[in-house]
Amino acid sequence: MTRLRQVTIIGLGLIGGSLGLALRRRHVARRVVGVARRSATAAQARRFGAVDRATVDLAAAVADADLVVITTPPSTVVPLAEAVARATTHELIVTDAASTKAAIVQGWQRVLPSRIRAVGGHPLAGSEQSGLGAAEAALFDGALCVLTPTRQTSPEAVRRVQGFWRAVGMRTVTMSPARHDAVMAMISHAPHLVAASLVAATTPAELAVAATGFADTTRVALGDPALWEDICWTNRSAVLDALARVERVLIHLRQAIAYRDREELVKILVDSQRKRRRLTGRG
Amino acid sequence: MTRLRQVTIIGLGLIGGSLGLALRRRHVARRVVGVARRSATAAQARRFGAVDRATVDLAAAVADADLVVITTPPSTVVPLAEAVARATTHELIVTDAASTKAAIVQGWQRVLPSRIRAVGGHPLAGSEQSGLGAAEAALFDGALCVLTPTRQTSPEAVRRVQGFWRAVGMRTVTMSPARHDAVMAMISHAPHLVAASLVAATTPAELAVAATGFADTTRVALGDPALWEDICWTNRSAVLDALARVERVLIHLRQAIAYRDREELVKILVDSQRKRRRLTGRG
Repeated sequence: MTRLRQVTIIGLGLIGGSLGLALRRRHVARRVVGVARRSATAAQARRFGAVDRATVDLAAAVADADLVVITTPPSTVVPLAEAVARATTHELIVTDAASTKAAIVQGWQRVLPSRIRAVGGHPLAGSEQSGLGAAEAALFDGALCVLTPTRQTSPEAVRRVQGFWRAVGMRTVTMSPARHDAVMAMISHAPHLVAASLVAATTPAELAVAATGFADTTRVALGDPALWEDICWTNRSAVLDALARVERVLIHLRQAIAYRDREELVKILVDSQRKRRRLTGRG
Repeated sequence: MTRLRQVTIIGLGLIGGSLGLALRRRHVARRVVGVARRSATAAQARRFGAVDRATVDLAAAVADADLVVITTPPSTVVPLAEAVARATTHELIVTDAASTKAAIVQGWQRVLPSRIRAVGGHPLAGSEQSGLGAAEAALFDGALCVLTPTRQTSPEAVRRVQGFWRAVGMRTVTMSPARHDAVMAMISHAPHLVAASLVAATTPAELAVAATGFADTTRVALGDPALWEDICWTNRSAVLDALARVERVLIHLRQAIAYRDREELVKILVDSQRKRRRLTGRG
């Protein structure tokens, strides 16, 4: 892609900070500007070298931006894009990194002027950690970024946003916002809630004996509760569908054990081992 | 502990092979003998240096043993201990490494002569891998071994079995067989079945997008289906209870989302993050 003049990152947590580090290391833009809510975070981002400039003044930070990346929690992405629109008069591209997409993409279509071309993005590259302190330049290397353009999205903007995420080392794939949300509900949001349920169902005495298997299975439950709450609300119906799907299999499995249905129990265990093996190599 | 003359390990998979390596490295016994079902496995164990001698002849392998460790799947532990009794006339101690304990300990009390003093053991040190090829001497280092003596168990035998597992680097804790099974159902068996359900509920297209969070949450589903089936049957009622507990929380969580009960959702997410943090440091 042609080198960008200025990328502005709104939100300097794990994703925003890592993105700044990756953009600077790979010389994707001449200037990387960061926007934080608190001036202490802005100062820390400068010290870390995560950005060239950091500020709490969103209007100043986006005034000269070619591309704005919003890396804050899902429910804040539309209001922040609106703030970008209010603070600018020039053409620019907006993308984001939120874990849910349909509500955001619909919101953008409702509130943004046509000079702002927005393309939903979701880099699948977080971890259960959060905050600028956990940021690392290699976070995106080889990971997948899901883009969620619609028929209303400018193909030129899609091409540029695709080039942007590839420039920090990601593979990209495109799907509709609704499809993205349904897939993520199943492979990320439901697993989080299932892991939280496992931990919640466990007593402290039981937990004291837990070994690596339990630790692996429940690691995602370390994630920020406020972010996960936001994900549940902004992807509510897909999350409910995915949870119902998992519950159905779990109840089915419990009944196979209760009714001593050997064939059915073995079938589920063998099938899930075989399917899970396809993921090996990805950890 | 006083150095043992001969330890015989029945079963040369991940646990048996690792135990042999650890015993030899730490000079816990003058001689480590292994028993495999197949002569190819016995030969491989000798090549690996996992044992001093390996054979498929159980009777020959236990004839001079002070201590026999049975590391085969749960449902085979009682019949193998019976075979040890038939093959010997001297006093000896038996322990095992199976994931379920009540059925085994009851079985031992039913079938073993008093000269064979058996103490249930469960080293919490496996992984989703299996087989001798995955064996490593350090597998037990710092991990916890649960011992499950009853009022009928000789205190002297408990002390010696405790010393044995500590000699390969483990910490030990003692609980009743029933308590062990209830705890393991909650922190190991239910998590496995939940992980299997997550994978089973997922379509291949969804799986293709799965990232590290899904991989972590479902890693245990890579475990050997035959072993897990055996665990489900030998710990059936505790597994059913644990699954019901997890299901209750999961349904509760789904209803909190369905009824937009913010307070309840946040409570579960915050509580589970807090509880899960206590595990950090253990992976």
